[in-house]
Amino acid sequence: MAVIAPSRRVRRTPFTDGVEAAGVKGYTVYNHMMLPTVFRSVEEDYHHLKAAVQVWDVAVERQVELRGPDAARLMQMLTPRDLRGMLPGQCYYVPIVDETGGMLNDPVALKLSEDRWWISIADSDLLFWVKALAYGYRLDVLVDEPDVSPLAVQGPLADKLMERVFGDAVSELRFFRFGWFDFEGNTFAVARSGYSKQGGFEIYVEGHANGMPLWNALMEAGKDLDVHAGCPNLIERIEGGLLSYGNDMTRDNTPHECGLGRFCSTQTAIGCVGRDALLRVSKEGPTQQIRAIEIEGDMPVCDRVWPLTSGAKRIGQVTSAAMSPDFKVGVGIGMVRMTHWDEDTELTVQTQDGPRRAVVREKFWI
Amino acid sequence: MAVIAPSRRVRRTPFTDGVEAAGVKGYTVYNHMMLPTVFRSVEEDYHHLKAAVQVWDVAVERQVELRGPDAARLMQMLTPRDLRGMLPGQCYYVPIVDETGGMLNDPVALKLSEDRWWISIADSDLLFWVKALAYGYRLDVLVDEPDVSPLAVQGPLADKLMERVFGDAVSELRFFRFGWFDFEGNTFAVARSGYSKQGGFEIYVEGHANGMPLWNALMEAGKDLDVHAGCPNLIERIEGGLLSYGNDMTRDNTPHECGLGRFCSTQTAIGCVGRDALLRVSKEGPTQQIRAIEIEGDMPVCDRVWPLTSGAKRIGQVTSAAMSPDFKVGVGIGMVRMTHWDEDTELTVQTQDGPRRAVVREKFWI
Repeated sequence: MAVIAPSRRVRRTPFTDGVEAAGVKGYTVYNHMMLPTVFRSVEEDYHHLKAAVQVWDVAVERQVELRGPDAARLMQMLTPRDLRGMLPGQCYYVPIVDETGGMLNDPVALKLSEDRWWISIADSDLLFWVKALAYGYRLDVLVDEPDVSPLAVQGPLADKLMERVFGDAVSELRFFRFGWFDFEGNTFAVARSGYSKQGGFEIYVEGHANGMPLWNALMEAGKDLDVHAGCPNLIERIEGGLLSYGNDMTRDNTPHECGLGRFCSTQTAIGCVGRDALLRVSKEGPTQQIRAIEIEGDMPVCDRVWPLTSGAKRIGQVTSAAMSPDFKVGVGIGMVRMTHWDEDTELTVQTQDGPRRAVVREKFWI
Repeated sequence: MAVIAPSRRVRRTPFTDGVEAAGVKGYTVYNHMMLPTVFRSVEEDYHHLKAAVQVWDVAVERQVELRGPDAARLMQMLTPRDLRGMLPGQCYYVPIVDETGGMLNDPVALKLSEDRWWISIADSDLLFWVKALAYGYRLDVLVDEPDVSPLAVQGPLADKLMERVFGDAVSELRFFRFGWFDFEGNTFAVARSGYSKQGGFEIYVEGHANGMPLWNALMEAGKDLDVHAGCPNLIERIEGGLLSYGNDMTRDNTPHECGLGRFCSTQTAIGCVGRDALLRVSKEGPTQQIRAIEIEGDMPVCDRVWPLTSGAKRIGQVTSAAMSPDFKVGVGIGMVRMTHWDEDTELTVQTQDGPRRAVVREKFWI
């Protein structure tokens, strides 16, 4: 397999020194930054994630900060989720849409205060969209990328490890809430969130230089918990139905197609630039939607769109897939037309190595 | 070195099959797409590029298409370069700036007609900026990414090879002009342009399926010219002073800092969103600017910012560097404060492997 060429353009993170020392074997690039994809093997990382605790360099979740009197108005322009009830200290998963209702990103937003928000982004330059909207509407708001780099602690032993470094109060955090916790003289936002179904936290590390001291402290404190460097795990996230922007959805898709309709209050999200475009689909429903797809037999790497067919007809596509060691089947995420999206519908998935039998499942594997 | 993890999010191009068959050894990711960085070795690719002809998969130069009655107005909003004199058939290198005058991209724009433009972008989601501006200003224009993938033919024998595939008229194209040429029933825009100083062309291939037939035809027709698969070459582009967005400049920099003042007509570029912010710097000049930096001794890979120091003072940074086989020195691109930017100024560059002696040159190596 080809190596990844180093350059300044593909940014190192505050934690890259730790990632390298831990023997990272694969990277992808995400928001112009290095994102580890495998340490021991994807399978070994997977089993360990489900059994112990891992520290993940997810600095690639860059923040778009909105600050100023119009911050809340701008935030609501970005998403069809109704933000009126959101309180400081809450995290909201917010589909971000353009004027046609197409997905531009699927970040988690943190409300720091009435006039200050962080948007913890997936892989697209959302900053450009937000800045131009603020400019076009002459809003009183500062929009920028602060020096904040999330570090995730994920796995069933995450609470134990975090208590040792941040104190017992950290485990009282509820899901998708964040609080402020001290570490060596700095105060970081810590949220109960993360891109796995194994539970855990994300620490919003402010200041590049504060990265490695925290990384090292977590590694040191977790030795007897078998803590390891880890990263979002392809197999585990597919089993859990965690979508990946750019893989499972793009600007071509509405939130409703992505199964994110429950995060949209299109009627009441007044000011959202995509509201008008989404009104009909929010009432009538989409004509295609994300589904869990079970795939038979061995599979190549899913590095491109795999058409889903029924007879001679193309009725969808698979965009993420892997063999699941725990469920002993091929697990996949696909977009399927409504004519074929009912559970147990039998389909064919066209991989680069030939067709495989596939079936639509009612739910993901978790 | 770590491998690059395949996924649909990091898109394959219409030419990836050819790139793989040619034995690509390294990739980077650019506009969410695979960009080859090395085939035989960076040095071997370099010598060959200067002696023969190469075919480059530069599909990562995605196009932002502007189409409609307000296309020209929107195009001028993006750049401080005065576009009033630009004719259909011309290519312009256009710094793109935000409302603060910070660089968002440094693409080549093609004027297809009065109401239709392509912007052939560097590595940032410029589409998001352009779409939001069009929306905020309620412009009558369609903004989208068409199915167009540039393929470059670069090197001293480029004219010869291109004539064999597109006919003799192609070599009559002047620098930064484009025309329409036929290939197997399709008509593609072909420009005399490209990201090297060795001369050559860029073919704007419309339609994903047309990629490999053209790739194969060029490889077949160029056998006796020693044609090889190639890619933008790190050493050659530094020698030639070709900047790389994300490496040598970012949103922190004005065009004037990047030495691109000659492409800015800030006084007359009426409508450019960054005009007001750039008026002073265009009159008074920047306080730091891009310089060619010669570096002594062996060097590690430049995968991060290297501070430039004079005594204890930080006076700039190097962001691209390599050993030049032809010039037998370390060649680099740096941003240097005006107090130290005169030629022959001696500086120290702080690499991850320790300090190296460096000197400011008057010009790049070509």
